[in-house]
Amino acid sequence: MPKIIVEVMPKADLLDPQGKAVAGALGRLGHSAITDVRIGKRFELTVEGEVTEQILADVATLADEIFSNQVIEDVTSIRVEEAQA
Amino acid sequence: MPKIIVEVMPKADLLDPQGKAVAGALGRLGHSAITDVRIGKRFELTVEGEVTEQILADVATLADEIFSNQVIEDVTSIRVEEAQA
Repeated sequence: MPKIIVEVMPKADLLDPQGKAVAGALGRLGHSAITDVRIGKRFELTVEGEVTEQILADVATLADEIFSNQVIEDVTSIRVEEAQA
Repeated sequence: MPKIIVEVMPKADLLDPQGKAVAGALGRLGHSAITDVRIGKRFELTVEGEVTEQILADVATLADEIFSNQVIEDVTSIRVEEAQA
């Protein structure tokens, strides 16, 4: 069955405390090449049957209204992943 | 500056309670085409300078040891995203 992948990230201009904490830890561990870390969410939606335009439109609405908090997050991508044969 | 994207998902054979809750809510909202939802994490690492093989190897180790809990999660992908021009 095909999957729809929805990716949600913190808004670029907002502080990402979790990301900052990880970035700080990486710096202390000597990974100085990594200058910033941002942590978001990845949704894998399994779809019964074919992914129609209507389903994609519904998922875009769901992504805005349920999967992300529009005040602090952006939906950065929605893509279809066909089932591995 | 280039970015390394690390994606971490719950192990396929493990129950994902958060995903199940969302899937249930979508069903009640009438989105019956979506039969399963799994929710994972997406890390965006900003790298100073070029992404070398060594940095990629380090990130793979970090992904296993810090970004994911190997008991319940899998690192599903690590890829480089060149900076948009």
